[in-house]
Amino acid sequence: MAAGMSVQATVIEKEARRKAEVVGVNVILRLLCLITTVTALSLMVTAKQDSTISVFGLSLPVQSKWSFSDSFQYVVGVTAAVAFHSFVQLLYNIPMILRKSPVISSRNYLWLLFAVDQLLAYALMSAGSAASGVTNLNRTGIHHSALPNFCKPLSHFCNRVAVSIGFTFLSWLLLAAATVADVVWLSKH
Amino acid sequence: MAAGMSVQATVIEKEARRKAEVVGVNVILRLLCLITTVTALSLMVTAKQDSTISVFGLSLPVQSKWSFSDSFQYVVGVTAAVAFHSFVQLLYNIPMILRKSPVISSRNYLWLLFAVDQLLAYALMSAGSAASGVTNLNRTGIHHSALPNFCKPLSHFCNRVAVSIGFTFLSWLLLAAATVADVVWLSKH
Repeated sequence: MAAGMSVQATVIEKEARRKAEVVGVNVILRLLCLITTVTALSLMVTAKQDSTISVFGLSLPVQSKWSFSDSFQYVVGVTAAVAFHSFVQLLYNIPMILRKSPVISSRNYLWLLFAVDQLLAYALMSAGSAASGVTNLNRTGIHHSALPNFCKPLSHFCNRVAVSIGFTFLSWLLLAAATVADVVWLSKH
Repeated sequence: MAAGMSVQATVIEKEARRKAEVVGVNVILRLLCLITTVTALSLMVTAKQDSTISVFGLSLPVQSKWSFSDSFQYVVGVTAAVAFHSFVQLLYNIPMILRKSPVISSRNYLWLLFAVDQLLAYALMSAGSAASGVTNLNRTGIHHSALPNFCKPLSHFCNRVAVSIGFTFLSWLLLAAATVADVVWLSKH
């Protein structure tokens, strides 16, 4: 009887350790993801610069702001959504750490989490790529024709946007890791 | 004994039906994905047009070709990789249909398939978004400055690229579905 109870205790202990690991991984990923998305978001919405460029000898005033480009607006929308999702997941996990209650309530919840993580990861990848396609075009000029390099007069703007895009890709990496973690838990559940 | 054998036969039958379903879903998804990626690829590599645009009263010769844009080169690379992957998966599945042998050999193979599908789905989303960011810029002109709309003189080129990008997103949708199917099998395996 005593031996049986000790075996049961070991099983419960192992289960508790496994759950603690799951919560740990989840909380760390969500926290990092919240930090990177908030950084990307705040860098992007503060990106703004006025300057002049000369095309064919004409001096043109150029004003650059994140909201002039659809791609940069898209980055702002997606990083805000991911930041919100990460924050909600953190809130959801914190009472579980304090009370040490079961982490993931049901298989359905895990499927929902996987679906949301997956969709947001695709959206982050999409926003990052669309924005870097546009910035790359700004930086190198347009190949079709002899147009000037916009990033020379607007270097402050372009650098800020580039760092913001870097953080967007970092958030994607973290969310992709969260998706894999979801699948591991789904396959073990 | 006879009842036991009949129960066993039903179980085997059910298992065989489940496997047939798995092969069916996999083959249909891979086949559709192969068709859409090959379409996207062939439309993109044949996109080429010469024209002239006028900027500030100056007439400039414009030559447009898919290989002038990094984003379009990226679409070509990714769709080629996905077409190859889909083709290999089809080849892998066909003998299984004919011989009705077990579909997926091992859990490790499923994890590998999930990883490859996931990475290629991200790559397709990334390529499609980068390319549509660039085409959108071509179509609307650049907001920073009073630059012309490139897609008026180059409508043939722009339409072909747009259709190719559409097929790239369709391929992404199919590959995302294949990823979900992988996770379902992983969670059941």
